[in-house]
Amino acid sequence: MSAVKTIEWKDGKVRMIDQTLLPRELTYLDCESVEMVAEAIRSLRIRGAPAIGVAAAYGMALCAVVSSSPTAGELRDELLLAKEILASTRPTAINLFWALDRMMRKASALQDAPLEQIKRELLEEAHRICDDDIAANRRMGELGAKLLPDPATVLTHCNAGALATAGYGTALGVVRAAVESGKRVHVYADETRPVLQGARLTVWELMQDGIPVTLLTDNMAAHLMRHQRIDCVIVGADRIASNGDVANKIGTYGVAVLARHHGIPFYVAAPVSTIDMNILSGDFTPIEQRAASEVTAPMGLPIAPEGAEAINPAFDVTPKELVTAIITEQAVVYPPYLQNLKGCLEQISDER
Amino acid sequence: MSAVKTIEWKDGKVRMIDQTLLPRELTYLDCESVEMVAEAIRSLRIRGAPAIGVAAAYGMALCAVVSSSPTAGELRDELLLAKEILASTRPTAINLFWALDRMMRKASALQDAPLEQIKRELLEEAHRICDDDIAANRRMGELGAKLLPDPATVLTHCNAGALATAGYGTALGVVRAAVESGKRVHVYADETRPVLQGARLTVWELMQDGIPVTLLTDNMAAHLMRHQRIDCVIVGADRIASNGDVANKIGTYGVAVLARHHGIPFYVAAPVSTIDMNILSGDFTPIEQRAASEVTAPMGLPIAPEGAEAINPAFDVTPKELVTAIITEQAVVYPPYLQNLKGCLEQISDER
Repeated sequence: MSAVKTIEWKDGKVRMIDQTLLPRELTYLDCESVEMVAEAIRSLRIRGAPAIGVAAAYGMALCAVVSSSPTAGELRDELLLAKEILASTRPTAINLFWALDRMMRKASALQDAPLEQIKRELLEEAHRICDDDIAANRRMGELGAKLLPDPATVLTHCNAGALATAGYGTALGVVRAAVESGKRVHVYADETRPVLQGARLTVWELMQDGIPVTLLTDNMAAHLMRHQRIDCVIVGADRIASNGDVANKIGTYGVAVLARHHGIPFYVAAPVSTIDMNILSGDFTPIEQRAASEVTAPMGLPIAPEGAEAINPAFDVTPKELVTAIITEQAVVYPPYLQNLKGCLEQISDER
Repeated sequence: MSAVKTIEWKDGKVRMIDQTLLPRELTYLDCESVEMVAEAIRSLRIRGAPAIGVAAAYGMALCAVVSSSPTAGELRDELLLAKEILASTRPTAINLFWALDRMMRKASALQDAPLEQIKRELLEEAHRICDDDIAANRRMGELGAKLLPDPATVLTHCNAGALATAGYGTALGVVRAAVESGKRVHVYADETRPVLQGARLTVWELMQDGIPVTLLTDNMAAHLMRHQRIDCVIVGADRIASNGDVANKIGTYGVAVLARHHGIPFYVAAPVSTIDMNILSGDFTPIEQRAASEVTAPMGLPIAPEGAEAINPAFDVTPKELVTAIITEQAVVYPPYLQNLKGCLEQISDER
C-alpha cells in the first residue's frame, strides 16, 4: 500500500512529484540546485509540513554534494546561504526550520572532517530524516488506528497523506494503518480551497490505494456531520504550539468548531518535529498570506470579477480546547497539552 | 443604486441575465417559451428563491400570452402543463411553488372571462409579483438596516442580492438600505462552492454599486470571525419552516454554527412568501441533490481524479436555535418563531 514516492534522492538530484500537476499527470521534477528546491517549496510543487522538512534536508545535502568549495569553511558559508534561501520559502510549517537546524548541527559537528566526509554524512543525515519520517508515520498510524471503530467514517481536511510526507502520511497514515489492520474505513475529503489539495491529492492517493473516498466542498462538512455518521475528524498539522494549539491548512479551525458542535472527536496526527515548544500559544504562529489570485482564479480560471479584493491566509489556528488528542509517533497525547507534550518530547531526549 | 435588471418582461418575451456567464460577461437571455424558462431555472441561468418565483410567474404569463388555444378551457390545460414543467425544475425554493399557485389561482378566478382578458390579467399578475418582490426587498432593507451598527462588517453566503430577486436583494437589500441611510458597510463574501455564486455574483453586484466587498473561500470564514470584527452574518433563504428552521444554500448551516461559536448574530432576510407553514420543521424540506460534476469539475475545469465520487447537496437546513432573527417585509421576527411567523402571516391576511 502507498507506493507513492513523494520525494527521494536519485542520481545526485532531489526528485519529487510535481504536485501542482496532480491529479492530471504524475510528473517528477529533478532538482539540481538549492534554488530549484526552494522554488518547488514556494510554488507548492511539494507541500505538507513533513514533506517540506524532508525537501529542505535534501536541499541542504544537494548544496553540499554539488559544491565546488575547496575548504570546509567555504562549504559552511554555502550551507548557511542555502539555509537562508530555504528558510525564506514558507513561514508556517516548523518542520522546515527543524530540518534546516538539524542539517546545520550535523555540518557543525563535522567542521574538522575532510570535505568528502562532510558531503557524504550530510546526505546520510538527509536520508535519515526521510526514513525517520516514514517510520514516524507508520508508528503514528499504528497508535492512531486504535482510535477508529470498525467500520469507520473519517472526515479529513487538506492532504496529510503520503504526498504531504516522505511517505505513508500522518492523518492518512492513521487511515492506512486502520485499513491494514482489517478495519473498514470510508474517508470524506474536504476539497480544501483555494489550492484544492483535498480534491487533487487526498482523493487521488486514496483512490490509488483503493480506500473508499468521497469528495465534498468545504462548506458541505456541517451538513454531512448532521446527517451522516462521521466517527471522527483527523487532520495533520504545520505547527503545534507548546499549549496544544494547532496551526494547519486554512479551514481546519472551522472543521474543529463544527466537530465540537456535533460531538465528533477531532484528532491531529503529526510527528513530534511539528511541536514548537518555543511558542506559548498558536497566536504566535506566523501565518503565511498567499496571493489573492489563488482565490480569485483557482488553477488560472477566473471566478471573480476583475479587480475583486480577496484575502488568502494559508493557515489557521485551532485552539487546544477543540483538539481531542494529538497522535504522535511517541504516543497519543491528551490534554493538558502543555504538560503532556513536554513529557512526550522529554521521553525522546531520554531515548537518545 | 442597483440598476441590475435580473428579470423583466420585454417585447413579449421573458428577458433575464444569464447568470452562468457572470462575471465574465453580462448577457441577456430572451425566453420565448415555458420550456426555455424552465431550462433557465434548472441550469441556474436564473437562481435565488425570489427570482425563481418571479421567473415562474412570467413563465406562466408567457404560456398564456403566446397560446393559440381557442378556448379558456384549453388555455387552462396549457397552463396546468406549464405549471407542471416549471414545478419540476428545482425542489427546494418554495417561492417557485408559491408563484405558480398564485398564477393558477388568478387563472381560475378568470375562467369565465374572454381569452384576451385572461392573457392580459395573467401578465399583470406576473408584473405584480415582480413589483411586489422589489417592494418587499426595499421594506426588508429598511427594517434590517436598523440592525446594523455604523460602521458595520457583514459576512454573507451565496448571493441573496439583486440577482437573486427581481431587484435590490434580500440580504444584500439590507446592506444596500444601510448604505443608503449613510452607514459604512463592508461586506465579506463567501465564494460559495460549488457554483460560486458568492465569488461570481455577490462580489460583482456589490462592485457595480461601489459597496466595499472582500472575497474569501468558504473555509476562511471561521478564521475571519476569530480575527476580524464581524458584526453580523446576513443570508437569504429558500424555504423557512413554520418552526423557523431555514433551508438555504449549502454551507449556510456551517456559517450559522460558526457565528454562534463566535457570538455573532445570524440574520436571515427573506420575503414572507418564503415561509412554508405546511412543514413543521426544516427536516421536511426537500433538498436538491445536483450533479457531482459541479464539485469535481467547477465551471468545466476538472479538479479531482477521473472517477472520483462526490456529494452535492445544493442546500442545507439551519435549525431555528441558530437564527437570531428573520427579517421579512412585514417585521423583524424573533423567536419563538412558530408563534411569531404565524403572527406575521396573519397580519398580511388581515391587511388584504
